[in-house]
Amino acid sequence: MKRESWQGNFSSWFNKALREADVMDTRYPVKGLYVWRPYGLRLRNHILEIIRELLEKSGHEEVLFPLLIPRDIFEKEAEHIRGFENEVYWVTHGGSTKLDIPLALRPTSETSIYPMLKLWIRSHADLPVKIYQVVNIFRYETKMTKPLIRLREVTTFKEAHTAHASREEADKQVQEGVRIYKQFFDRLGIPYVITRRPPWDTFAGAEYSVAFDTLAPDGRTLQIATVHNLGQNFSKVYGVTYEDLEGKHQHVYQTCYGISDRVIAAVIMVHGDDRGLCLPPVIAPIQVVVVPIPYKGQEKEVQKEAEEVSNELKGGMIRAHLDDRDLRPGDKYYRWERRGVPVRVEIGPNDIKRGQVTLVRRDTGERMEAPRQNLVAEVKKLLDGIMRNLTRRAKEFFEERIHEVGDTESATRVLKEKGGIVRIAWCGKESCGLKLEEETGADVLGLEFEGKEVAGKCPICGKKTKTCVLMAKTY
Amino acid sequence: MKRESWQGNFSSWFNKALREADVMDTRYPVKGLYVWRPYGLRLRNHILEIIRELLEKSGHEEVLFPLLIPRDIFEKEAEHIRGFENEVYWVTHGGSTKLDIPLALRPTSETSIYPMLKLWIRSHADLPVKIYQVVNIFRYETKMTKPLIRLREVTTFKEAHTAHASREEADKQVQEGVRIYKQFFDRLGIPYVITRRPPWDTFAGAEYSVAFDTLAPDGRTLQIATVHNLGQNFSKVYGVTYEDLEGKHQHVYQTCYGISDRVIAAVIMVHGDDRGLCLPPVIAPIQVVVVPIPYKGQEKEVQKEAEEVSNELKGGMIRAHLDDRDLRPGDKYYRWERRGVPVRVEIGPNDIKRGQVTLVRRDTGERMEAPRQNLVAEVKKLLDGIMRNLTRRAKEFFEERIHEVGDTESATRVLKEKGGIVRIAWCGKESCGLKLEEETGADVLGLEFEGKEVAGKCPICGKKTKTCVLMAKTY
Repeated sequence: MKRESWQGNFSSWFNKALREADVMDTRYPVKGLYVWRPYGLRLRNHILEIIRELLEKSGHEEVLFPLLIPRDIFEKEAEHIRGFENEVYWVTHGGSTKLDIPLALRPTSETSIYPMLKLWIRSHADLPVKIYQVVNIFRYETKMTKPLIRLREVTTFKEAHTAHASREEADKQVQEGVRIYKQFFDRLGIPYVITRRPPWDTFAGAEYSVAFDTLAPDGRTLQIATVHNLGQNFSKVYGVTYEDLEGKHQHVYQTCYGISDRVIAAVIMVHGDDRGLCLPPVIAPIQVVVVPIPYKGQEKEVQKEAEEVSNELKGGMIRAHLDDRDLRPGDKYYRWERRGVPVRVEIGPNDIKRGQVTLVRRDTGERMEAPRQNLVAEVKKLLDGIMRNLTRRAKEFFEERIHEVGDTESATRVLKEKGGIVRIAWCGKESCGLKLEEETGADVLGLEFEGKEVAGKCPICGKKTKTCVLMAKTY
Repeated sequence: MKRESWQGNFSSWFNKALREADVMDTRYPVKGLYVWRPYGLRLRNHILEIIRELLEKSGHEEVLFPLLIPRDIFEKEAEHIRGFENEVYWVTHGGSTKLDIPLALRPTSETSIYPMLKLWIRSHADLPVKIYQVVNIFRYETKMTKPLIRLREVTTFKEAHTAHASREEADKQVQEGVRIYKQFFDRLGIPYVITRRPPWDTFAGAEYSVAFDTLAPDGRTLQIATVHNLGQNFSKVYGVTYEDLEGKHQHVYQTCYGISDRVIAAVIMVHGDDRGLCLPPVIAPIQVVVVPIPYKGQEKEVQKEAEEVSNELKGGMIRAHLDDRDLRPGDKYYRWERRGVPVRVEIGPNDIKRGQVTLVRRDTGERMEAPRQNLVAEVKKLLDGIMRNLTRRAKEFFEERIHEVGDTESATRVLKEKGGIVRIAWCGKESCGLKLEEETGADVLGLEFEGKEVAGKCPICGKKTKTCVLMAKTY
């Protein structure tokens, strides 16, 4: 399938892909709010299953906190509230009654969760605490909104929060958070860079932030996950302490890390093509669609065979769907291609006669014949192959768009001509970093999290440096 | 287990049960908002799995709509808004900016969903539409709030919405809604009465409402599900039409039906006892806890056997948990009893020697020995038996508390002395119904949905009637 034209006008491709695949309806009458349709919601839920599995396996427990946070509690951590004050929705009335204290719709949940952690944690034996929740959060975005990417209601906010006895353990927890997200994105075939965000782009209230970025087809980066080390900033404000082995009360060290609907946007944009969605089998709501190709006089035989094939696939734990509606096969092909179903099985009289089925791959469009015997194993192998191909293809696209540059002029030119990410030396001074952004019109993503040292010169001040920074135009 | 004392002071029993089982934390600093702890959330999620399964099987598709509804759209259906206007939370500000149009936090989602149905439905071929979502909703409760029962944020609102071509189909859909909820409560072992609510207690905007009520231990009823026939009330206001076979545009007929956190309250209160929760195996987060009883010198052997038993149970698809913490067995027993784990497996040196395990039932406290061979089958049989016993016990308790009465005086006396539900003749006139409520100080639940006809006399006006009404003190 061609994967060129969708790079030309990514925004219109994205909206059309969402609409034609019945992922979301963007016509809800409030800016920045969208409606999940059944197919999209199933896709979302399969993605959530994976992150839940990874979190549970590593000892995180799911909780659920209230949406509303009283203003006085919300505003305790000064830096945190400064970071969010322009974005918070306020509930001021219940019925016609004015509330004594306005209630914030959570923009994130540190300030609702940590006062309760104060009650839950008594001694070192209660640590570490590792919890997470999947909730809706709200941000009063004034910029242009975009489905799944820039929302006023983020409907799929998975946030994890942890508490530890020492700074070292919190640092180690950041590593675990990064590891979990790596596994998560690897399972989805989404390529990424990991950077330690510069101080001026650190989460409000955190000591440092690590972030994952992937690439939209138009060459801009999309932040898809963040991991924050909060140090004792919040625990001091909310009084979250534990009694250590000597009986002394210490403030806990905290981390938090989150992903959002943007992961779903990434799956769609990273793997999609000119024909719409192209879903990784692991999360496709329908992995295989079975389409009977009836010929006059043989309708019953073909229908029966298609039913048997569909049931056999389901029995083999494959998410199969039989499309036996009274429509032309071509119309069905079109519909399921737009929805990104990885494999189509066609069954006609000839296939039956020859004891075979016809398989069509969504990713390459390739048609092939497969023996009717052993079909489940054959289809599973094909699904694995599609997953590998999607992953490889996305990785290639991504790596081709990471460019080494030596000065801001070539950074600007490369970002303009080719898009993507540039790697450029940086001395580490904030003033030089801000100047880099100013001169290129791009954002500093940060220092590579597991980057190698290099020998270079800061293009702003000319100082020798061993560190590089990644920069890009961002969403 | 005794099941008497928890009837004495139900409210304090309920709060203690929630706390000791780690279901919820009631200390969140806003009235009517509570925090789901991990064990409670797992219980909730198992309950949701069942209702999702029943809805999907009957052709409902899951969707997800925004929380916020603009005031002008929210207030279109006059009767609906009259029913909710005192309870709606209003968002008036984004950051420090006053919003042009205040946004309601949904108290239920008719007014957010139906404007979109208008876009989705074109012709008769698009009908019926059967969708549902599981969301948080908000009500500014001024009465005393109570965890899971009377909330300001209902965190678990499962609402289904359907649209049909004719009144008959909508009526049939009401029957399907009732059937689904019957299956749901039967699976949970929760007894209920089903009534058609009287006109003065019908859902705001509905033609009629059917409701399920169960009984709290203190003899009050708890409404746990409702099914509404909305007729064309909403479709006319929101312009939801379809083109019929003759090409004419007709307004659709609609139904909606919902359950909430109260289902979880019902599971806890209906089956619980003096020792706390007593969970139906079908939804217990942990169905079997394995407790090693180590003796000096045989710790390793006992531990090894306990691990093997736990793994064997897990392999048999039983939700087993090995509690091998360094605590006294008695402390563990106490903890898991409070959490309502259906079966405890104890393993000591004697058990190993005799090739057996010791099983203890949570519902009856009964201890028994079971051969180590074939343990999975044995435990499954036991879990089934516990499910049956809980269901039978709850049904007995419930049926003992439905009383036939002939006049308002005995209704009042019976409700005061015994609690529960009274069945009393009613002529059907609203004035007589309201008088029944006034004279007894109880609420009319409604006409029994599938009630038999009887010969009686309305205790208010003396008119002969064939219909009976159910009345109770309600939550």
